[in-house]
Amino acid sequence: MNDQYFMKIAIEQANQATGTWQNPQVGAVVVKDGEIRATGHTQPFGGPHAERDALTKLTPAQTRGATLYVTLEPCNHYGKQPPCTQLIIDRGIKRVVVAETDPHALVTGKGIARLRQSGIEVVTGVGVRAAARVNPHYNFFFRHGRPWVTLKQAVSLDHRVSAGPGQRTSITNQAVYARVHRERANFQGIVIGSTTAIVDDPTLVPLPHPDFMPARVILDRRGRLADHQQLRLLNDGLAPTWVFTACVTLADQLAGTNVQVVYLADCSVIKVVETLAKQGVQSLYVEGGPTIHAAFAAAGLVEEVISYLSPQMLGTMGVPAFTPPVPWSFADPQVEILGNNVRIAERKRQDV
Amino acid sequence: MNDQYFMKIAIEQANQATGTWQNPQVGAVVVKDGEIRATGHTQPFGGPHAERDALTKLTPAQTRGATLYVTLEPCNHYGKQPPCTQLIIDRGIKRVVVAETDPHALVTGKGIARLRQSGIEVVTGVGVRAAARVNPHYNFFFRHGRPWVTLKQAVSLDHRVSAGPGQRTSITNQAVYARVHRERANFQGIVIGSTTAIVDDPTLVPLPHPDFMPARVILDRRGRLADHQQLRLLNDGLAPTWVFTACVTLADQLAGTNVQVVYLADCSVIKVVETLAKQGVQSLYVEGGPTIHAAFAAAGLVEEVISYLSPQMLGTMGVPAFTPPVPWSFADPQVEILGNNVRIAERKRQDV
Repeated sequence: MNDQYFMKIAIEQANQATGTWQNPQVGAVVVKDGEIRATGHTQPFGGPHAERDALTKLTPAQTRGATLYVTLEPCNHYGKQPPCTQLIIDRGIKRVVVAETDPHALVTGKGIARLRQSGIEVVTGVGVRAAARVNPHYNFFFRHGRPWVTLKQAVSLDHRVSAGPGQRTSITNQAVYARVHRERANFQGIVIGSTTAIVDDPTLVPLPHPDFMPARVILDRRGRLADHQQLRLLNDGLAPTWVFTACVTLADQLAGTNVQVVYLADCSVIKVVETLAKQGVQSLYVEGGPTIHAAFAAAGLVEEVISYLSPQMLGTMGVPAFTPPVPWSFADPQVEILGNNVRIAERKRQDV
Repeated sequence: MNDQYFMKIAIEQANQATGTWQNPQVGAVVVKDGEIRATGHTQPFGGPHAERDALTKLTPAQTRGATLYVTLEPCNHYGKQPPCTQLIIDRGIKRVVVAETDPHALVTGKGIARLRQSGIEVVTGVGVRAAARVNPHYNFFFRHGRPWVTLKQAVSLDHRVSAGPGQRTSITNQAVYARVHRERANFQGIVIGSTTAIVDDPTLVPLPHPDFMPARVILDRRGRLADHQQLRLLNDGLAPTWVFTACVTLADQLAGTNVQVVYLADCSVIKVVETLAKQGVQSLYVEGGPTIHAAFAAAGLVEEVISYLSPQMLGTMGVPAFTPPVPWSFADPQVEILGNNVRIAERKRQDV
């Protein structure tokens, strides 16, 4: 029973956290006299952090002199909750073992420094790789100051997205449909272009509905939605909806509706992403179509590609899926069979 | 214990037959007094058929009055072995249960008629669907008078076969390499075009080497091999090699070598396949490249597509894999993960 062992249990706890939304999933374990006395994890957004969840399961007498294992550096500031560092100090914790330091540049190291100032022994970096995998989007957002971007595509074996221009084509199977709906809940924004909005008329909401709905983001530089105001995502109020456009007419039309319209003179993907980053959007699931995928690729903003592949061929009349101008290689491809469709999730290598 | 039950065991026997080459894999079960007395299956090419394999494990006294289950209609002609019908009659079999009748137009029903003429009760069609799946190539060849054609492609996620024209590109992984080598042994001919021959210089032999090597078939209408006579498959003598060409110079060059050269003035895929059919070639594994695949598709000769997919993107400079001019749908796609590559084998629907 060493630090690695107890941190592994803390990471398992972190993975059990749900509904944390913009907060990271964190796990905590309290150990005294070599025995686990309590475990905890981040409660749904707005609720207690992992350290508080674990420590408040015990009396002060039980926590005094204990070691706390926590997958992410304890916070040292007032947010929706009081700082965890204060609770750790108040509860007489003697030693804190941390996996990841906080990726947020303004915060990193401050929690650890505060604990050390109070005479607590702090060990860092234990299980850091496994812990970092729990919150890839959160980590990326605070390290790079922009959202993690996943391109998602549903393609045929011959790498096409529809039978022809303007044709809504159901390529993938029901298992993929269900998987995509669940997957949307892992992101804070779902991005489509105006063609997808008009041709598919999607709602883009995750199913089942999560407590926090990802924002729907429609890129419509030319303002084509002005002639399609009946679209479901402009009217259903099921989730926040953002329309980015360089078209004054559309911007005027949508002003005063439930839709957030952002007029950007150039309406480039970089500007859109900057705007979303300022809103705290940590992750984007870019559903396409191919033109939007190409714009994100050209801007160098792609971290991951998730492809759902159906083993049919749409033929040369089909609309080609996004294809990069240079070869792309990927790290750690995860391949999964869904019925007779295939899901491939892979991290874009940034060195090419 | 009914006919279905014993036929299922006979089909299991059929699936165990190896090295049967141009003979179908057949299984046989001898049942007397409700008990299985012997089983058998087709022996390697030139050896005994399944009925003989099973019956000769028993004495004439043991077979007298028994029921014989056999997955394919017993033969009634002298080939490499004497007719099985005669042995069945000689051994005093009382009842014969057959799954498939022989697909060969010249033979079908003759074995069954011979047995009935001898007073043996014959039941047909028991387990016929499962039995037919054991020998798809054999059945297809004798029903349609032409080889079963499988297009095989190794493609990137963006459906490309190489990084650029004339570039040898290793797309798929070692598990695919091993699988393709084994898979070649299931076919009687491996087809490539001159570009693949020149760029990849493959030997196209299955590994491990089977007892019967599939023929290597190179389509080289324009005679480009005339300038590439050092290619391995023209010299290694590891397997029969056929070159089809409309180029007199190449035909003259190869005359008198170990290579079988066939001069065809139009050298169309249909003529090539006709020639191979006359040679008794029951199945072709068309490895490509894309030009050859397109020619087989245009000729309407494709029964199956096997795709090996690697989750990388070669980009717009890559050479596109075969894409049909109209949508192709498939029956019964079989999807399998090989490391982080994917194998998809599927039957082309002929109604589209």
